[in-house]
Amino acid sequence: MPCIAFLPGEGIGPEVLAQARAVLEDLRGPGFGFDAVEVPVGAVACDAHGHPLPQATLAAACAADAVLFGAVGDPRHDHLPRALRPEQAILGLRRGLGLYASLRHIRIDAATAVLSPLKASVVQGVDLLVVRELDGDVYTATPKGQRIAAEEPFAGDAEGFDSMRYAAGEVQRVAHVAFRAARARRGQLASVDKANVLETSRLWRQVVSEVGRDHYPDVQLRHWYADNAAMALVASPRDFDVVLAGNLFGDILSDVASVLTGSIGLPAAALLGDGEPGRTRGLFEAGHGTALDIAGQDRANPVGCIRAAALLLRHALARPDLADRVEAAVLAALAQGWRTADIAIPDTPAHLRVGTQAMGDAIRQAL
Amino acid sequence: MPCIAFLPGEGIGPEVLAQARAVLEDLRGPGFGFDAVEVPVGAVACDAHGHPLPQATLAAACAADAVLFGAVGDPRHDHLPRALRPEQAILGLRRGLGLYASLRHIRIDAATAVLSPLKASVVQGVDLLVVRELDGDVYTATPKGQRIAAEEPFAGDAEGFDSMRYAAGEVQRVAHVAFRAARARRGQLASVDKANVLETSRLWRQVVSEVGRDHYPDVQLRHWYADNAAMALVASPRDFDVVLAGNLFGDILSDVASVLTGSIGLPAAALLGDGEPGRTRGLFEAGHGTALDIAGQDRANPVGCIRAAALLLRHALARPDLADRVEAAVLAALAQGWRTADIAIPDTPAHLRVGTQAMGDAIRQAL
Ligand SMILES: CC(C)[C@H](C(=O)O)[C@@H](O)C(=O)O
Ligand SMILES: CC(C)[C@H](C(=O)O)[C@@H](O)C(=O)O
Repeated sequence: MPCIAFLPGEGIGPEVLAQARAVLEDLRGPGFGFDAVEVPVGAVACDAHGHPLPQATLAAACAADAVLFGAVGDPRHDHLPRALRPEQAILGLRRGLGLYASLRHIRIDAATAVLSPLKASVVQGVDLLVVRELDGDVYTATPKGQRIAAEEPFAGDAEGFDSMRYAAGEVQRVAHVAFRAARARRGQLASVDKANVLETSRLWRQVVSEVGRDHYPDVQLRHWYADNAAMALVASPRDFDVVLAGNLFGDILSDVASVLTGSIGLPAAALLGDGEPGRTRGLFEAGHGTALDIAGQDRANPVGCIRAAALLLRHALARPDLADRVEAAVLAALAQGWRTADIAIPDTPAHLRVGTQAMGDAIRQAL
Repeated sequence: MPCIAFLPGEGIGPEVLAQARAVLEDLRGPGFGFDAVEVPVGAVACDAHGHPLPQATLAAACAADAVLFGAVGDPRHDHLPRALRPEQAILGLRRGLGLYASLRHIRIDAATAVLSPLKASVVQGVDLLVVRELDGDVYTATPKGQRIAAEEPFAGDAEGFDSMRYAAGEVQRVAHVAFRAARARRGQLASVDKANVLETSRLWRQVVSEVGRDHYPDVQLRHWYADNAAMALVASPRDFDVVLAGNLFGDILSDVASVLTGSIGLPAAALLGDGEPGRTRGLFEAGHGTALDIAGQDRANPVGCIRAAALLLRHALARPDLADRVEAAVLAALAQGWRTADIAIPDTPAHLRVGTQAMGDAIRQAL
């Protein structure tokens, strides 16, 4: 029996995760079951156990076949030293689970195009996948810290510094993820860097080119500068199939791609490490954060987290059939017009404007 | 008599610069004159003089009161060593002229909202200014290079590396530029960083907060993570007044802001160094690049470069009156319906679809 670790976190994390878990529970039957473990993470874990990622939480996540993650982050903890801030739980889980590729799939059809801040004529039909390297880059390379500047004209000033770095092997493994995805889709890969300025990017560009040439000659590879890629994602998002970027550029570009959908409550992300297709170690989450302003009020959109559960079924539990059912149920509920506040439009009739719980119910109904 | 250095560069640079220069020539009169010097830069300079930024070009730019810049960049030079590639002319000019703040002003009114990839309801009324630090960050800090990785699990691999760094003084000087601009506008400053991940950003955030508290208590300061800021710029750009970011985040965010206008042929940038208001050392340019595919065909949009000339009049030659005239003439020509190909819409009548030269004529006519 596979084991799923549920990490609700804080803010709207617990309530959206409860809906996603209810969907998974509804799928139980002769052919499908799972063991469940629920463990604390983030500011709530820090308050209760003195650390945003308690040892027991990381151990449970590592022991499980997959992790379904709610959300963490609470500005009330911003005064804490870096190591105790809630985001460190995210970075610690990525490291601890060996996750190095984040996949965010953005699809916009006629029914949801109206939600986008972009013109429907620009976004309708968008179907793109952002693959972000998740382990290296300026996020984790050392040294980083604060010191006194040594160079004129600012010698003597306080100075903050970080190190940006990619080794060929780090780029190769995530490039394979992106090329494989592109091959299974429309065969186009846009690799993003700033090779005109960064040495890290020169290495990135060279390695991605080599992986493509040696293993995926059938995939059409194009290199983009990060600034141009960000512009093009907004100006003509339909031109993209798979977008591959390092950790820092990928952070920004995944979010730019997500906002095209009109609500960060809609897309989900699969954060993957090693494994075989369908049996990859992974953490699955909605694209949104803790949204503390609406937490605990039955107002959050559970769609992202329910889609994350579908990704979990597909990538970690080798159940693409169940993943398809969940994804179809989400689309069906949206097509029936059910809307949480973030995706309601002025035309939405009152009886279809629902809360977290009722949105989850509508999706489970459609299962 | 002030001296303006004209640096046409390559691609569409020369033709748009010619239009901007013609506008400046038309302003000559009893109260206004200038000396002009024109010098080569970029790939053309590299072909003719062996370097994308010949000594004589940098000297002429430094001796002038202001620089009007066309565009540089030619992928045919991508195989050259970094030091000889055209972009190095841009970075060398910024360094050589001591430019540390780039200002990009994005304004979208009812007449131009239709060009945006965003819904008119989202962009109409946008009036925001992106202030980007232009001298430091991961662009210029050392060491940077290629080496063999020393750390497991990638030890022995090729590795690219860069250094990210900001000293307090570097942040202060550009923060003052942004706060002063915010005070003269709607009093709101959005400062962008990744303080949840980067030590450079923690210093950035602390210094910006201090500058605000000590000198601009009347300006409302809000800190944003770069990913969230990029999303919000697309989802609700009207919420922004002045956006302040470091060199790398600012590169991406200026371009995301520019694409809201629907054409990178429309906005212009002022790249400023030390000086007094109105008499600041600066380089002025359109937001677009060389657009080699349409170069030399009378198809480029000269509006960005003509707006750059207006910024030059305002920031470097202390002639806000003439700057206002030029900006009004641009708006008038657009309101009359004149359109180069990049800003034509299906409704645009054939007689208003014009080339570079005729667009420049229409603007000079409106002067
Ligand atoms: C919270 C933060 C560390 C994180 C990141 O930058 O990776 C977040 O923005 C994300 O994209 O998941
Ligand atoms: C050409 C490149 C070095 C430059 C930059 O990144 O600064 C460009 O993108 C810009 O924004 O002017």
